[in-house]
Amino acid sequence: MDPDSWLRLNRTVRFGDTDAAGVLHFPQLLHWCHQAYEESLERFGIAASAIFPTPGQPLTVALPVVHCSADFLAPLVCGDAVTIQLTPQRLDPSSFELRYSFRCRQQEVARGLSRHVAIASAERRRCPLPEPIQRWLEASSLSGGIQPL
Amino acid sequence: MDPDSWLRLNRTVRFGDTDAAGVLHFPQLLHWCHQAYEESLERFGIAASAIFPTPGQPLTVALPVVHCSADFLAPLVCGDAVTIQLTPQRLDPSSFELRYSFRCRQQEVARGLSRHVAIASAERRRCPLPEPIQRWLEASSLSGGIQPL
Amino acid sequence: MDPDSWLRLNRTVRFGDTDAAGVLHFPQLLHWCHQAYEESLERFGIAASAIFPTPGQPLTVALPVVHCSADFLAPLVCGDAVTIQLTPQRLDPSSFELRYSFRCRQQEVARGLSRHVAIASAERRRCPLPEPIQRWLEASSLSGGIQPL
Amino acid sequence: MDPDSWLRLNRTVRFGDTDAAGVLHFPQLLHWCHQAYEESLERFGIAASAIFPTPGQPLTVALPVVHCSADFLAPLVCGDAVTIQLTPQRLDPSSFELRYSFRCRQQEVARGLSRHVAIASAERRRCPLPEPIQRWLEASSLSGGIQPL
Repeated sequence: MDPDSWLRLNRTVRFGDTDAAGVLHFPQLLHWCHQAYEESLERFGIAASAIFPTPGQPLTVALPVVHCSADFLAPLVCGDAVTIQLTPQRLDPSSFELRYSFRCRQQEVARGLSRHVAIASAERRRCPLPEPIQRWLEASSLSGGIQPL
Repeated sequence: MDPDSWLRLNRTVRFGDTDAAGVLHFPQLLHWCHQAYEESLERFGIAASAIFPTPGQPLTVALPVVHCSADFLAPLVCGDAVTIQLTPQRLDPSSFELRYSFRCRQQEVARGLSRHVAIASAERRRCPLPEPIQRWLEASSLSGGIQPL
Repeated sequence: MDPDSWLRLNRTVRFGDTDAAGVLHFPQLLHWCHQAYEESLERFGIAASAIFPTPGQPLTVALPVVHCSADFLAPLVCGDAVTIQLTPQRLDPSSFELRYSFRCRQQEVARGLSRHVAIASAERRRCPLPEPIQRWLEASSLSGGIQPL
Repeated sequence: MDPDSWLRLNRTVRFGDTDAAGVLHFPQLLHWCHQAYEESLERFGIAASAIFPTPGQPLTVALPVVHCSADFLAPLVCGDAVTIQLTPQRLDPSSFELRYSFRCRQQEVARGLSRHVAIASAERRRCPLPEPIQRWLEASSLSGGIQPL
């Protein structure tokens, strides 16, 4: 499977993403980041229900974001077609980070980063990353990926 | 206790509420409606944890919104100070609706409505409204309230 | 061109769409409605910049939503794949409405409606719908469409 | 005027801020940051219309966020009452940053940061910070403030 199929995504800036200055309202980019992470897992073949809780199906391992950041290099306006390149990286047995590069009109327009830690829900303690996440990290690491932030 | 203290709320349009047309992006008003409902319960003296689920504390009765609507009468822009008048009304033993009137600069600028049904989480069946909601509905009904939509 | 290509869309419920009850937070559906409307125009061949304002490019005609509503028939959870069927309808020379039917697991799970009015920005008065919207409405009306709400 | 009146704010976690894990969905914190910034200016006495664009009133100077980050130290759940402490700091004649410390139940639960640059809208070039922002930064710098992130 070509890593591009789950590490390079597309999305369009919608009207509701913008603010009265006419550009993407900055916290929306972080929403985009998490949605790109979810889409990447889905395309790789991991069901959302294996990673995210649904009613009546609480998870034994949660993966909360403990840190995030973003850099805004050029404005994005309604209708802009954006390519998102993801670079997932295992940090240690219980955490990973994801770097996101957003490109539009042949240039990088924004960068994002999220850091996720595996927490055993019962004991509220760090624990090993879930097996599907480990597979996705491993497969992604073989893909080369983008330069770090 | 004066019903105004829990049925008349204030809020300001923030930059992130607006879109590139410079006005409140319409779905935000529905977010405002639910937040006004939560603030009203809080001011009346009902703890959020009695009505809304928190981790490790699932509720036996859920109160999902089954219907909502909104009318937009005049544009709202960043910085506008808005008064929200709530009119809760019991519909039957297992449901109620909330009407919201938004006023700014001496005129009604928007109206909203949400309809909520009590569902017993285990059986996924309609059930009587939780007791705190019943008290809040009763106290609110004595307040006169705004004209229906 | 097959109307299905611009009137039948797909989207997946993401983690950030849900609330602590584990289901789609209801105002998100209205965000989905407007995004589906934008995607429909885009697929039909109308540039976002022809309909939505961008910085330095204010529009002579705005199309604000003056009314919206939604019905929630079944819960949607993270990872659910949803089909959105749009039924646009011209109401009079200066307004139209859009009905949205959301389906998942072989059933209708939600319905939405938005009503849009053309306003000449300078005079702040009703005016005829922009020509691209007229073409899209006309082409859509030939498609049969879903039953009214 | 006591700096606490514009640099220490309060807000409650609402149901729509949470996700299916039952806790504040992380990008919401960045929305909270910008809203706290707006509320701080308002309490200090600066009208929103002096800083943020409204229809028909474009601004000569925009203040886009060029960088943001957040750290999440403890989960926040629906109903949590949060105190937000702001520490604005001038970086150079055309930019400033804002640090946000979020406290709940006697502990720091999250930290945020946003960096803003003044851009002359016409030339799309860096320019001096608007005078009201300079006054707010100066008054805030006399307040002591919180420790850096």
